[in-house]
Amino acid sequence: MEDKRTVAFIGLGIMGRPMAANLVTAGYHVLGYSRRRESADGLVAAGGRWADSVAGAVRDADVVITMLPDSPDVQVVALGPGGVMASARPGTLYIDMTSIRPDVARQVAAAGAEHGLRCLDAPVSGGERGAIDGTLSIMVGGAAEDVAAARPVLDMLGSTVQHVGPAGAGQTVKAANQLIVAGNIALVAEALVFLQAQGVDVDAAVAVLQGGLAGSTVLARKAGPMLAGDFTPGFRIELHDKDLGIFTAAAREAGVVTLLGAILAQLTGAARAQGDGGLDHSALIRVIQRLAGQQP
Amino acid sequence: MEDKRTVAFIGLGIMGRPMAANLVTAGYHVLGYSRRRESADGLVAAGGRWADSVAGAVRDADVVITMLPDSPDVQVVALGPGGVMASARPGTLYIDMTSIRPDVARQVAAAGAEHGLRCLDAPVSGGERGAIDGTLSIMVGGAAEDVAAARPVLDMLGSTVQHVGPAGAGQTVKAANQLIVAGNIALVAEALVFLQAQGVDVDAAVAVLQGGLAGSTVLARKAGPMLAGDFTPGFRIELHDKDLGIFTAAAREAGVVTLLGAILAQLTGAARAQGDGGLDHSALIRVIQRLAGQQP
Amino acid sequence: MEDKRTVAFIGLGIMGRPMAANLVTAGYHVLGYSRRRESADGLVAAGGRWADSVAGAVRDADVVITMLPDSPDVQVVALGPGGVMASARPGTLYIDMTSIRPDVARQVAAAGAEHGLRCLDAPVSGGERGAIDGTLSIMVGGAAEDVAAARPVLDMLGSTVQHVGPAGAGQTVKAANQLIVAGNIALVAEALVFLQAQGVDVDAAVAVLQGGLAGSTVLARKAGPMLAGDFTPGFRIELHDKDLGIFTAAAREAGVVTLLGAILAQLTGAARAQGDGGLDHSALIRVIQRLAGQQP
Amino acid sequence: MEDKRTVAFIGLGIMGRPMAANLVTAGYHVLGYSRRRESADGLVAAGGRWADSVAGAVRDADVVITMLPDSPDVQVVALGPGGVMASARPGTLYIDMTSIRPDVARQVAAAGAEHGLRCLDAPVSGGERGAIDGTLSIMVGGAAEDVAAARPVLDMLGSTVQHVGPAGAGQTVKAANQLIVAGNIALVAEALVFLQAQGVDVDAAVAVLQGGLAGSTVLARKAGPMLAGDFTPGFRIELHDKDLGIFTAAAREAGVVTLLGAILAQLTGAARAQGDGGLDHSALIRVIQRLAGQQP
Repeated sequence: MEDKRTVAFIGLGIMGRPMAANLVTAGYHVLGYSRRRESADGLVAAGGRWADSVAGAVRDADVVITMLPDSPDVQVVALGPGGVMASARPGTLYIDMTSIRPDVARQVAAAGAEHGLRCLDAPVSGGERGAIDGTLSIMVGGAAEDVAAARPVLDMLGSTVQHVGPAGAGQTVKAANQLIVAGNIALVAEALVFLQAQGVDVDAAVAVLQGGLAGSTVLARKAGPMLAGDFTPGFRIELHDKDLGIFTAAAREAGVVTLLGAILAQLTGAARAQGDGGLDHSALIRVIQRLAGQQP
Repeated sequence: MEDKRTVAFIGLGIMGRPMAANLVTAGYHVLGYSRRRESADGLVAAGGRWADSVAGAVRDADVVITMLPDSPDVQVVALGPGGVMASARPGTLYIDMTSIRPDVARQVAAAGAEHGLRCLDAPVSGGERGAIDGTLSIMVGGAAEDVAAARPVLDMLGSTVQHVGPAGAGQTVKAANQLIVAGNIALVAEALVFLQAQGVDVDAAVAVLQGGLAGSTVLARKAGPMLAGDFTPGFRIELHDKDLGIFTAAAREAGVVTLLGAILAQLTGAARAQGDGGLDHSALIRVIQRLAGQQP
Repeated sequence: MEDKRTVAFIGLGIMGRPMAANLVTAGYHVLGYSRRRESADGLVAAGGRWADSVAGAVRDADVVITMLPDSPDVQVVALGPGGVMASARPGTLYIDMTSIRPDVARQVAAAGAEHGLRCLDAPVSGGERGAIDGTLSIMVGGAAEDVAAARPVLDMLGSTVQHVGPAGAGQTVKAANQLIVAGNIALVAEALVFLQAQGVDVDAAVAVLQGGLAGSTVLARKAGPMLAGDFTPGFRIELHDKDLGIFTAAAREAGVVTLLGAILAQLTGAARAQGDGGLDHSALIRVIQRLAGQQP
Repeated sequence: MEDKRTVAFIGLGIMGRPMAANLVTAGYHVLGYSRRRESADGLVAAGGRWADSVAGAVRDADVVITMLPDSPDVQVVALGPGGVMASARPGTLYIDMTSIRPDVARQVAAAGAEHGLRCLDAPVSGGERGAIDGTLSIMVGGAAEDVAAARPVLDMLGSTVQHVGPAGAGQTVKAANQLIVAGNIALVAEALVFLQAQGVDVDAAVAVLQGGLAGSTVLARKAGPMLAGDFTPGFRIELHDKDLGIFTAAAREAGVVTLLGAILAQLTGAARAQGDGGLDHSALIRVIQRLAGQQP
């Protein structure tokens, strides 16, 4: 780990901020960069440093991490002028942790190979809470030796780190993750709306459902806020909608039929169209409630 | 508990057999009845007794339990000539643990009130394994004092026993349980077919999915058998299809829109139509595979 | 036709009223009965007569026609005390034109066989306008010779009269008809909402769509009112929802997977839950609009 | 029309061939180009001429028409080196009749504005038969005066020509057309599979359905071949699947929720995955049959 001491961290949003801070705590020299200078305040307070540009951040880094909103942002930061490819030293380990399209992850990896960078796609699951607690699930695509090299850093960020295949595989698994999470939210939502309509003691019902084959992390974490109408994000529906777009497009290309995925992408699309895109993804229940004629 | 020592157990199938045996082990006098005499062999070996008829089983029982295939069976055994209502003593606690239509559960409870029986609907989740281990989740509808009286018996059968509302509420929660379970199976199936089509390391993917917000009891227990093609029931698709019929009908009556429920009922219907009704419900993945042009 | 001169017409609602009047115009002696006396005013003005009861209407009739709201109504009027079976003469031709469950139609036919009545199920398509104009499409189930005997009467009510199979077959075809009609309405609704969102000249678009493979009777008749927001029934969504319940249940029993049917039944259910059950079925577009965040 | 006498026709496939021939018949000088020389045999026999390249075809043309497989083909032919923009004279009327993404149509129109070309998007409905008979439905996007200028040519190709809005609007309407057509095919398929499973006289049923509100061009033209198992294209499922991809993506961008569209795109995807992509789109019935456990 001696040679992996300096980490450039690009993207200091809801997720990136606590992740970068955790790396400082773990003893890394962290140079942060974000579009807005003030996003780095917490990092600087924790002992990290601010870099004035992507190029400035990555130039002397051993490891570069990006945590950005979407595929085009990664294309700009990784591939654009003054970006990671153009500015990092050969041999640098570049870990993109954004959730993006698998084909863009493969495009980045191919560009990395040309520039002598070692690239991994390593999107995460677990939300803001997992980022703060360092308990994210991290799904990693890339070469085995690069995954091994990255593991000390990734272990500071997540409690489950899995190498799931070659370049792009991390994003593919993330897409599947988003299918299952959205599906669980929608199932719990349909169940709760149904149970409330029938006059059932819903708290007792959730407890017994959790104890059987219906149990899930979503049921454990989200049923309460859904019943309480607390939709502070967390993970915004508009991002989940973007992710389901990635999933359904990738499934389509692969010749995989995904009836639930297709319906779920419509439900997240409905949530956005109805003005709820900025709420936590558990607010999908509001779409189900409106379908049933309720005013949530 | 002194006055609840004799239990009549009607229905000794895959679920009823181990449940009745657990009650013997717990010290109850158990009189079993089933359509086929040989179904009682295990119970008798464990120390229970065989009754020649429903009437014979329930006549002197403190508690009557039925665990039958479907709503019409319960109507016959509970309400028919020589059935529970006709034969049990007033004051007997009658617990139907079959998964049936909520309106039939309410019909039974109303008949019980006329005959002086105390009725509960108490369907279970957890499958054969939960029945054997005594770790079922049990969702109970009925009067609070009757639930309290039944609790010692139910605690021998399940690890989670919840009173969820008045007569029929147990069945309502069970219907919601079946929605969520079927949905989770289908989501995991779509995810696995997708990941396999993309050349991902599926075992590693399942591990990382389980660690994040996508984690669920279905993913933990069923992904392995689904990947191995092991569909020994367990819980048969044709029964799950019946249960989704109950759910969608009850949702319809209640004015609750359930897009996922509707699609899931079609998928279980497809599984039956394709000849897989007798397989474990995790075999839903075969419908997804066939949709994607694979020959499972 | 000499011996088919007296027609008892039970059920004088939106559909029954003009149908009965058309039979008067065609030269039949028509005795009408309806739950409310005033429903017969138009019939009496046209030259028909009022009967005080079902029994009174059918006693001397050559042909009995029922046009009622739903399956239970037909069971009461056909099979109940003082009903058609109990009161009509053996040999009477009994044509039920209500849209009901195919199994109830078969139950009525079986009862008719016992009582010596010749029964047909002959539901219609074409709505109030078709009833007034005598241009209904009539789908007839029953024995060929009974269909032949009924044809003179049916030809006065519809422009397309087809014998589609044995008892119940008329209702089966009607169920399929309701699937296709609901589907066409929903497709046109999705298309119109899409085109409006894109700033297309929707009237020109409808014209060109109608000229190609997308053309349909629904597009021709309903797109205009949908765009104008005119949802005067016509055929009420709550009745169409009932019919889709019949279709999906019958498909389920027959082992036929019907993904579109399942979604459509959810959409009509949503329309009812949202308070639009009393509007014309073309008001399904309001569900689509609300899903897209619009306030119709 | 004197100044619109020479037409360059690029793309001589199933659709383009008869369309180009119809223009020859109508008195136009037609220069054809296609990737494969032999595709022009019919055109040459009819009196048209072969051009060795796109540039050669369009250089002296008054009107340029392209009829190609998909969006990327149009981008290459219209925008690429030696393409329409690079080679046609300023003022040339360029009509793309391919079914492509609306945003690509707008991209072409913008490029045309730079090069001084007058661009229209004018996709068609009506299939090979409509192309041969000159009875296509043509939905045209672009400036009103350019539509007016193109009308003499378009009237030789179609019986319904509608100006539906600005650049891209033709493609938008075409996308809606493909939604409705796919939906009608799937509805008819579900209805036919249902009716056959119930033992109904399906030919009689189709006749009566056609007479009522369920009537459609799809029912009239496709039910027969579907029942006969004749799936000679016509219009291939794989192209329809592409078009539904365009529709669902455009709907998503516009914030329009399209539950039926989403399911239909899965069904055409299933048809492709099951190996039926090369069959006529009416072969969607085979997906429905397989879901119901039948071996079509």
